Amino acid sequence: MSVAFRNLNHSNAWESLRSTEPPRLADVLDRKRIDDYRAAYRLPDGATLDYRYAAKQVADSTIDSLQALADDQQIIDKYRMILDGEPMNTGEDRMVLHHLCRSERSGAVIRNGRDYGAWYAGQRKRFASFAEGILSGALVSTSGRPFESVVQIGIGGSDLGPRALYVALAGHEYRFGGTLRRGPMLTTRFVSNVDPDDASAELHGLDPQSTLFILVSKSGTTQETLTNEAFALRWLRDGGIARPRKHVVCVTSETSPLAKSTDYLDSFFIDDFIGGRYSSSSAVGGVVLSLAYGPDVFAELLAGAAAADAAALDGSARANPALIDALLGVYERNVLGYPATAVLPYSQALLRFPAHLQQLDMESNGKRVNRSGEPVDYATGPVIFGEPGTNGQHSFYQLLHQGTDVVPLQFIGFAEPQRGDDVEFEGSSSQRKLNANLTAQIVAFAVGKDDPNPNKRFPGGRPSSLLWARRLTPTVLGALLAHFENKVMFQGLLWNVNSFDQEGVQLGKLLTNQILSGADLPEALAGFVDALG
Amino acid sequence: MSVAFRNLNHSNAWESLRSTEPPRLADVLDRKRIDDYRAAYRLPDGATLDYRYAAKQVADSTIDSLQALADDQQIIDKYRMILDGEPMNTGEDRMVLHHLCRSERSGAVIRNGRDYGAWYAGQRKRFASFAEGILSGALVSTSGRPFESVVQIGIGGSDLGPRALYVALAGHEYRFGGTLRRGPMLTTRFVSNVDPDDASAELHGLDPQSTLFILVSKSGTTQETLTNEAFALRWLRDGGIARPRKHVVCVTSETSPLAKSTDYLDSFFIDDFIGGRYSSSSAVGGVVLSLAYGPDVFAELLAGAAAADAAALDGSARANPALIDALLGVYERNVLGYPATAVLPYSQALLRFPAHLQQLDMESNGKRVNRSGEPVDYATGPVIFGEPGTNGQHSFYQLLHQGTDVVPLQFIGFAEPQRGDDVEFEGSSSQRKLNANLTAQIVAFAVGKDDPNPNKRFPGGRPSSLLWARRLTPTVLGALLAHFENKVMFQGLLWNVNSFDQEGVQLGKLLTNQILSGADLPEALAGFVDALG
Repeated sequence: MSVAFRNLNHSNAWESLRSTEPPRLADVLDRKRIDDYRAAYRLPDGATLDYRYAAKQVADSTIDSLQALADDQQIIDKYRMILDGEPMNTGEDRMVLHHLCRSERSGAVIRNGRDYGAWYAGQRKRFASFAEGILSGALVSTSGRPFESVVQIGIGGSDLGPRALYVALAGHEYRFGGTLRRGPMLTTRFVSNVDPDDASAELHGLDPQSTLFILVSKSGTTQETLTNEAFALRWLRDGGIARPRKHVVCVTSETSPLAKSTDYLDSFFIDDFIGGRYSSSSAVGGVVLSLAYGPDVFAELLAGAAAADAAALDGSARANPALIDALLGVYERNVLGYPATAVLPYSQALLRFPAHLQQLDMESNGKRVNRSGEPVDYATGPVIFGEPGTNGQHSFYQLLHQGTDVVPLQFIGFAEPQRGDDVEFEGSSSQRKLNANLTAQIVAFAVGKDDPNPNKRFPGGRPSSLLWARRLTPTVLGALLAHFENKVMFQGLLWNVNSFDQEGVQLGKLLTNQILSGADLPEALAGFVDALG
Repeated sequence: MSVAFRNLNHSNAWESLRSTEPPRLADVLDRKRIDDYRAAYRLPDGATLDYRYAAKQVADSTIDSLQALADDQQIIDKYRMILDGEPMNTGEDRMVLHHLCRSERSGAVIRNGRDYGAWYAGQRKRFASFAEGILSGALVSTSGRPFESVVQIGIGGSDLGPRALYVALAGHEYRFGGTLRRGPMLTTRFVSNVDPDDASAELHGLDPQSTLFILVSKSGTTQETLTNEAFALRWLRDGGIARPRKHVVCVTSETSPLAKSTDYLDSFFIDDFIGGRYSSSSAVGGVVLSLAYGPDVFAELLAGAAAADAAALDGSARANPALIDALLGVYERNVLGYPATAVLPYSQALLRFPAHLQQLDMESNGKRVNRSGEPVDYATGPVIFGEPGTNGQHSFYQLLHQGTDVVPLQFIGFAEPQRGDDVEFEGSSSQRKLNANLTAQIVAFAVGKDDPNPNKRFPGGRPSSLLWARRLTPTVLGALLAHFENKVMFQGLLWNVNSFDQEGVQLGKLLTNQILSGADLPEALAGFVDALG
């Protein structure tokens, strides 16, 4: 396959895209457009996840131009290269294989005698069986008691994605061991921050005799995670556990220092081809989710993600939700000049999903050089932030409606509540009120409202899109996860940046270690160390 | 007092400010600057809270220009007008009295026979005594049991500030009834979202027989809050409580429908002069915090806030942390053109503080018309977002270091952990590692680093400031709260906008009610209602 890597503004389609005029949403937002501007995922259990973009500031001709851009940048060809194991993480000369964690396609990528699809599948079978053992009580603690609590120690991608998914499924009804359940089977907590107040608070109230830890660090050298391991081991020892590492399983790479120790209860492996922020569907997310909700729920999540990955292969932007989302985002960033995007789930269960997307997007595409290391002369990844609606409506929406900057909005919503526990009040259920608010906001932002009092005037023209499903199930959640992973990947390809490295985190580590080592420090650093000392 | 209200760019100081050149931080960041660029709060218990701004892109001459701007815009005179009860919330023709909730200065503002300072103090005494009654067991539930849990139902300002403060104090050691304690005395939860999954999840595991609710709505008509009240009342009734409103206290205005009901256990009052996002130091925050940690802890928080309010009266920007912070923010927004600000507390206890500041800032100053209703032709409030460090370092810091936009950073840090429970690992404590990271990041962002590999190059010139104290105590937290309230107020005065109304939330409410009422809908709205139906 012959592909060319070109900067966004060197694409043949760029000039024509740049000259398109955004329509006035108040003029065009009719029923036909609402029906037409939609791309859908069909999931294996019959569910659908719709991406609706009628409230984006584009015309059919804009979408044609965006399609031309996608074609010219050979986006789908490049996605296929990723799936086929080309080393698309250029700076680090690595493959990008997170998709393979959910397709588990044997034979798709074979290198140096390893069949990666089969290998990821093998890891998943191992931790599924481990989770069954813990949950059935066959695997017990060193004091002979069943494990009742699990604490994941990890930071960044080893924390944000797994935690967001854990929270998102806490209200889902599932079956395990023949019984219908809702909520985690083990008390589940997460420790990430090196601030000792984090570990101290999260371990409070747990019983060392029945607490299992998952230690997640690909390199096995993450400062925060090893420090929190030390905190946990001391806590276990103080709680009377003589061999505390027998209460710890590792998720790490085979070559990490952690993998070399036989002191741990067990280890599950990932590798350099699974980036931290893309690792939720690997053992990084899989072990804790399988322990909390059982391996079948995790398998459903993977099936939803795999279906979304397959749908992302469609070359037609109008039929490919992740591709059209990516293109619209580039249009808003580079043609319309909007600097930030708000993620607004109308679902309390998605409380921590914006924090995951913030990492996924900003760490992937917050880059100022292209994949060949040359500075780019256009804006790349935007600031991503968000909180659940309707909460945000009573908070920062004021600026979104009437501030001086336009901030594009990504709504997410569901027809039904997850817990099925609703109340009627003044003629409507909570869920109906929730979604009436969601609908009202889309239109209010897009259309605005005139008023003789300028303080009550709404300019409108504030674009949004909506991801919509019947209910937040594991398959829908998996598809949501993959949607955003693929959107971010497509945007990186459009911008011609490497979305899979993160050199920007290195300098802070270097200076931190200089301070901790007691080395002679340059003046600025020494000055601050003394000031805060 | 004669003051003039002028747009930012009509100030006599604007042109000179606009022509200042930002220094290159790598060139100027020396020990002297680090020591000099500092303004401090001195708190009544002897604690200090420092605002350090050596890593801002300003020279002494810039600060002189900013001082001239503050003088010309008569910022301190206008602050005094607020304190004296001038109706500075122009659109709604209301006074702005949240400062009086902590100074409680009798005689400062008297209108229509009400001494507001004395009245707020009276409310505080009432809810302090109520909290003592609940905590001592003198006040019991309708089933005769002591209350063991409390749930605050409120949204926006009735949720974000109180919740952030509650979380911030969860690790603080305090004394109540002669006993040293850490953590809340009642199991404390918050319900805000109209999504029924929120109430359903938060009530799970609580016992209706011993659960008290705080219903917070100034108007007494907030849709989400009344719907969640209905959810709670049904839950209480289903739990065998015959008179469920006897498990509910209200925080509302005297004129609200809630205040008229005698069914509730009790009611504590606020009024129209306490804006939602400024209400944490009123009964809105005070009732729940007094129940969780006792009235004395809440009083300490107020004392810290009152000290910060007093310090904010200093006309010299160099000596007034809130004023210099406000001025630097305007400089970054309007001269340097930066669109967003990240709030980065190196303290897990401040986990929800960025969400509170997001509302405070974006809802106050996300305005496109000035206080007279004329559109402004400059940028006002920026996007505010953030997560605790070191977590953020493994997430969105990549974009902050190497993205194409510059995002100013507000760090917050403490010398000591709150819980005093630390671990040594590889030669240093967690807390030392935490603060080594904080120090390293300030310098890395400011100074950057060259490298032959452009992918490993850090441009630097990314400005930050730091709020720093020895420990996160109630007084320090109160000062932090007031610092940001006053900073936002000062910025609103600099931009000549009304920071105390929020007309931008109205249109969504209107359209939501149109949908719920079943009225004939305009086409865009009808189209979306059908699409999501």
